[in-house]
Amino acid sequence: MYYKLTVVQFSKMLRNLSVILDKAQSFADSKKVDIGVLLNSRLAVDQFNLIRQVQISTDISKLAVARLTAKEAPKHEDDETTLAELQVRIQSVLDYLAGFSEADFAESATRPITQPRWEGKTLTGEEFAIQWAIPNVHFHITTAYAILRHNGVEVGKKDYLGEMPYKS
Amino acid sequence: MYYKLTVVQFSKMLRNLSVILDKAQSFADSKKVDIGVLLNSRLAVDQFNLIRQVQISTDISKLAVARLTAKEAPKHEDDETTLAELQVRIQSVLDYLAGFSEADFAESATRPITQPRWEGKTLTGEEFAIQWAIPNVHFHITTAYAILRHNGVEVGKKDYLGEMPYKS
Repeated sequence: MYYKLTVVQFSKMLRNLSVILDKAQSFADSKKVDIGVLLNSRLAVDQFNLIRQVQISTDISKLAVARLTAKEAPKHEDDETTLAELQVRIQSVLDYLAGFSEADFAESATRPITQPRWEGKTLTGEEFAIQWAIPNVHFHITTAYAILRHNGVEVGKKDYLGEMPYKS
Repeated sequence: MYYKLTVVQFSKMLRNLSVILDKAQSFADSKKVDIGVLLNSRLAVDQFNLIRQVQISTDISKLAVARLTAKEAPKHEDDETTLAELQVRIQSVLDYLAGFSEADFAESATRPITQPRWEGKTLTGEEFAIQWAIPNVHFHITTAYAILRHNGVEVGKKDYLGEMPYKS
């Protein structure tokens, strides 16, 4: 279950984010504006810009999976300034996530999880996944989407949710 | 697991949304503006306004739980125009969700789920919960938050995530 909730679903959401970013590039091209304008946009002066939203979305995805499985996550320098570099970062996290399997999560539910900012406090893996990691990944990808939506990029909720495995 | 993923976590997120809406009221009061300005705000001309984001957040929460457990969800007329009415709606869904227990979800993972818009197509309960309901609830609550954040209401990610059950 944790594998599907995190590795599989986070990968899907990151692929959806990648497609949304490509739509932002097409929009910028059609408006003859530099994509940098969108990458540096935010919805409030004290909110992280689009670049940072993408960095955080990928960080939370990789670190959540690493912590739930007691593995090491790859480091990223947070030095992306272009859309192409953000896409490389997304792909690198997708590649990292692709190395996991259901078996890696056998002890995740009860594993004590901590993070540097928590100053030694812990959550169980179950609490961490449901109350922290999952809402956080969806928060930052929705925020990236909202920044673009606010600036006129033609994206809809289907882009955010991605394809559903419907059976007829 | 489905009980915690949906009933417990959706209830937490709806309570967080309720607190965020109260902060919007305080902000409007401090600015001496009608809260209706915020309730009718949106981030793009063809996006649903804040009222509708709250209505959808509650609808997806109640309907997801009803569908996963093959129960009936309460109907709402979508006629809220005030913050007080939106808070009543949130509370009514919290009350509905409070009537469920873990046992109601015994068959949820494999239950075929459909919705009117899907024209007879189905997802399994597992696919529906992970790929549709959970991302959707977090999407609309984040969007409500983003509309308020964009308008200057002092909310932060901690308001969105709510309290964590940290152990020291």
